[in-house]
Amino acid sequence: MTKFTADEANAFLASAFPGRGHQNRVLIMEPGRAVIRLEADETHLRPGNYISGPTQMSLADTAAYMAIMTMTGLEPMTVTSNLNINFLRPCIGNVVIAEGVILKIGQALAVIEVDIRIEGAEKPASHAIVTYALPRKD
Amino acid sequence: MTKFTADEANAFLASAFPGRGHQNRVLIMEPGRAVIRLEADETHLRPGNYISGPTQMSLADTAAYMAIMTMTGLEPMTVTSNLNINFLRPCIGNVVIAEGVILKIGQALAVIEVDIRIEGAEKPASHAIVTYALPRKD
Amino acid sequence: MTKFTADEANAFLASAFPGRGHQNRVLIMEPGRAVIRLEADETHLRPGNYISGPTQMSLADTAAYMAIMTMTGLEPMTVTSNLNINFLRPCIGNVVIAEGVILKIGQALAVIEVDIRIEGAEKPASHAIVTYALPRKD
Amino acid sequence: MTKFTADEANAFLASAFPGRGHQNRVLIMEPGRAVIRLEADETHLRPGNYISGPTQMSLADTAAYMAIMTMTGLEPMTVTSNLNINFLRPCIGNVVIAEGVILKIGQALAVIEVDIRIEGAEKPASHAIVTYALPRKD
Repeated sequence: MTKFTADEANAFLASAFPGRGHQNRVLIMEPGRAVIRLEADETHLRPGNYISGPTQMSLADTAAYMAIMTMTGLEPMTVTSNLNINFLRPCIGNVVIAEGVILKIGQALAVIEVDIRIEGAEKPASHAIVTYALPRKD
Repeated sequence: MTKFTADEANAFLASAFPGRGHQNRVLIMEPGRAVIRLEADETHLRPGNYISGPTQMSLADTAAYMAIMTMTGLEPMTVTSNLNINFLRPCIGNVVIAEGVILKIGQALAVIEVDIRIEGAEKPASHAIVTYALPRKD
Repeated sequence: MTKFTADEANAFLASAFPGRGHQNRVLIMEPGRAVIRLEADETHLRPGNYISGPTQMSLADTAAYMAIMTMTGLEPMTVTSNLNINFLRPCIGNVVIAEGVILKIGQALAVIEVDIRIEGAEKPASHAIVTYALPRKD
Repeated sequence: MTKFTADEANAFLASAFPGRGHQNRVLIMEPGRAVIRLEADETHLRPGNYISGPTQMSLADTAAYMAIMTMTGLEPMTVTSNLNINFLRPCIGNVVIAEGVILKIGQALAVIEVDIRIEGAEKPASHAIVTYALPRKD
């Protein structure tokens, strides 16, 4: 079972990221996997009316953060160490879905793969690999 | 000489990114190099009162976008193809500076290195390599 | 159907990479996917008797190159533009399998995901995202 | 002063990487920085007579490994955790130089920037960011 539920995740994001955490809605938290939904507004767009790169990066980062907490429970001081994102196709639409799946979780690091797509789209708009450093347990 | 000035860059960002483009202030645009300044507020923070990862990613992306325009002039449809960022140290402070320097600009792709640091800090908080796809000239 | 068969791939690698191309044996070439097998010897090891990082990088690069040729046919001047690899677990064993799957193939770029594991292992030892630039068709 | 000299580095690489470690010659080891030289032969080439991508990746990995040992002394079980490399220009020539500079060295991770170029070339052929995991000290 997940160590951190979708309801807990939503409450945490809203309080820890004032002014923007509420935009991401965590839909699914199950062991090793988190799914997040963003209803985009004009602040998420870039020229061409695409969902902007930074919007997708932020979603990837948050989906990875939440995927880890399915395994660790609440650990706010888990911090991003590396994020690599490839933009595959224009991301055009109103609702964006990010799905994070853990590839590896060790003592020091976790590596998460994230797919980002417009809700209902067959193919992802971007693909990220995110590495988080876990707080040391001493 | 730059093909796009800091004043032009600031006007472009404010109009192309409604609601957030004005937060980044472009300080320097010279051939192959752009420097941007962000005055952080609570929406840019993450637990630990660090400047958040997504804030730094967004700055890296924008610094790279502007560095390219020093060489190409205004080209809004230049789009990010890959961003790789490493977080080196906690980023704690009020003002963040991102400096983008072009490593290569070809016909199809440009690769930009970006250093991000708290204003006045000796060492960078993060380091990004950003690849943009340039619009095809036919 | 694949535009380049496993037999063609093996013949190409052996002739194009004298002295090392024959070590990789292409097992599967099907549209958008290539699988390669390496029988490791002591030149592929690093301290700890792990399959070395560069051995895995080389396999990832070749699996991506071959995955593209399933779609394009023989195109030797397709060249790597970016490779990002995360090492997830020690890679210990005699036979290494690399599987490349295309995430996107456009006019200018192809992005391929590669999993690398010891033959028979459940979990991958490393995971790479490889971007190739395709030759321009004019 | 460096904790591991160029002579020690060369002896270590030759013994730890039988059959290929001797090809890399470490020229400079100074605190936080290592420079390596490779005399290329046909096994290092790819179609187009370029120095191959895997050859450059291997050099980047080794330059980073040695840069760390300038600070830590001999630590063979320091292992690559991530490598990201961008190929900027064709790498054509007989002698390749890789220069690794530490961006950050912490308790758990070190991040190294590596430039690779043909000896004497003004511009780099490729640019890598390499993350190594340091052995735990308990």
